[in-house]
Amino acid sequence: MNTQRLNSVIEKMKQDNINQMLVTDPISIFYLTDKMIHPGERLLALYLNVNSNHKLFINELFPVHDDLGVEKVWFTDIDDGIEIITRYIEKDSTIGVDKNWPAKFLLRLMELNSDNKFVNASYIVDTLRMYKDEEEKDLMRQASALNDEAMKRLKETLNEEVTEKQLVGELTKIYEEIGADGFSFGAIIGFGANGADPHAEPGNAYVKKGDAVIFDIGCVKDHYCSDMTRTIFYKEAPEKAKEVFNIVLEANKRAISLVKPGVRFCDIDLAARDYITEKGYGKYFTHRTGHSIGLEVHDMGDVSSINTDVLQPGMIFSVEPGIYLPGEFGVRIEDLILVTEDGYENLNKHDKELCIIG
Amino acid sequence: MNTQRLNSVIEKMKQDNINQMLVTDPISIFYLTDKMIHPGERLLALYLNVNSNHKLFINELFPVHDDLGVEKVWFTDIDDGIEIITRYIEKDSTIGVDKNWPAKFLLRLMELNSDNKFVNASYIVDTLRMYKDEEEKDLMRQASALNDEAMKRLKETLNEEVTEKQLVGELTKIYEEIGADGFSFGAIIGFGANGADPHAEPGNAYVKKGDAVIFDIGCVKDHYCSDMTRTIFYKEAPEKAKEVFNIVLEANKRAISLVKPGVRFCDIDLAARDYITEKGYGKYFTHRTGHSIGLEVHDMGDVSSINTDVLQPGMIFSVEPGIYLPGEFGVRIEDLILVTEDGYENLNKHDKELCIIG
Repeated sequence: MNTQRLNSVIEKMKQDNINQMLVTDPISIFYLTDKMIHPGERLLALYLNVNSNHKLFINELFPVHDDLGVEKVWFTDIDDGIEIITRYIEKDSTIGVDKNWPAKFLLRLMELNSDNKFVNASYIVDTLRMYKDEEEKDLMRQASALNDEAMKRLKETLNEEVTEKQLVGELTKIYEEIGADGFSFGAIIGFGANGADPHAEPGNAYVKKGDAVIFDIGCVKDHYCSDMTRTIFYKEAPEKAKEVFNIVLEANKRAISLVKPGVRFCDIDLAARDYITEKGYGKYFTHRTGHSIGLEVHDMGDVSSINTDVLQPGMIFSVEPGIYLPGEFGVRIEDLILVTEDGYENLNKHDKELCIIG
Repeated sequence: MNTQRLNSVIEKMKQDNINQMLVTDPISIFYLTDKMIHPGERLLALYLNVNSNHKLFINELFPVHDDLGVEKVWFTDIDDGIEIITRYIEKDSTIGVDKNWPAKFLLRLMELNSDNKFVNASYIVDTLRMYKDEEEKDLMRQASALNDEAMKRLKETLNEEVTEKQLVGELTKIYEEIGADGFSFGAIIGFGANGADPHAEPGNAYVKKGDAVIFDIGCVKDHYCSDMTRTIFYKEAPEKAKEVFNIVLEANKRAISLVKPGVRFCDIDLAARDYITEKGYGKYFTHRTGHSIGLEVHDMGDVSSINTDVLQPGMIFSVEPGIYLPGEFGVRIEDLILVTEDGYENLNKHDKELCIIG
């Protein structure tokens, strides 16, 4: 167990009167134990108790033989793992559970332990994960440096002979070549009208002259995630698309320029949103401005108009305004921003000015 | 909406006195609406009511403009989607939810609607999904035919110059070439001792003479999954490994030969397990014998010693006994088996006899 992180979690549990909790997010378990276990649909739970009776409930299918500094309670596929957990937890008190814990486990635990009060407590570890320590900042810088390099190489592979999907294949090779551990999310590569869906699946389209091309890509390196979007033009940039591009670019820059401790997440969102609205495209900016990132590509902490939390040093999040004109094209420009003591550091060095390729 | 499937779901809801349910598994939503929407961490819910007031609760971020035969209720990232759902559901009655519905949604719904009784009801759609209709059987055959071809090509790429991880890269290309839509799960490719972990992550190891090599691979084609494992030997098969291989192969064959309607899942598991135990390796067969498969690589329905459900025509599941000797090697042999009217059809035609390569 990472003692410093564990102590911070226990401290926060005490403050919030949550005496016990089940940490079940594999990434949070990694954050606390330094051991990544992917349980798939099976049960895996790190039980934390303010009185230190921590346990790791783990299926024998995952042969984790190293000493993790926490007692392991093993079970198999034919055991009722939740029933085994109930032998260890305190009755008649609150028990924190993870935000993503599947209902099949939670409902079963409620059935067996109806005297407990259940609360979503993953914010405790998630909040801590928002503040990157020096080691984590370096890991985040490395992941984004790889992503910068990948973006450069990916742009070079664009031509009229490759589909969006084939470019994802190219990106797979690029990440492999430069030593990334894989994708942090399914890359979004959209040509022309396909870029007007913010979450488009890469398909069999070929790029055409005048297309805006969205590259929204991210890799994982040593468990930490990168995420960057560039919109470029193929052969030429039509006037309307250029106008929209410049609006999005300016929104991206205005939002980023505000970043420093004490500013609220919603202020960052509004800086981008107000500018886009002022330019007449407000209804085409259909998503939040960004999201926190770290061990997960979407960590806790939205850059959205309703998040009034305040930025603090060590936080890292995306700033990714976009404008999507259905049937025409989309433009999104995204950087990862680290909050420093007195401002910010942009983890993405790759050029984001207007770029025409081909 | 697929009327026939929807009617079967409503029928089963009535039988089980569940008047309303929230289907939130994107794959089950696809199964019922023919529309695949990947909501990521966002809320997506198909509300079904035995009185036909069906609704699809969907974030505006997912621009689904086709008529799905169900009224859409839109919300955005800044809305409380669960609060919106509560405006439509019946109070004071049971509400079924999905087994994997994240606790953050379920706990919020419980908070707002404490008069409802919540039950895990995804078995209703999941059970229906176990019975493949003729169209689905064909899709499953096609996915496995692609996987057979991929296994053949993957074997040809094995040599002392490529790592496990690089072979995953090769497999990516192979699936692309033969027209698969991608992986149905992270491929497991393990050389020698790495194969002794049933869920090993492919790493930077190179194959050595005498290694048992596990290839556990699967692709998706038109939303349906394949999944097959072969264990082959590189250059030679040491005596002990050969002995273990033959035990696993015989266990696989014995289990498969039993498949027909009326036999129980546990009987299939036991056929494999008893044989391996009899040969002295029972404690090294650390997982269930198989799992159902279809739109998901792990569909509902374990081939395990505690599943007393009875096989029926149209079901498809894996038979994949294995023996894992920590620090030495592992052997697993897996086929997908379709239950027919009077027996079975093995969807995997790729040879599974002892094979030495290199």
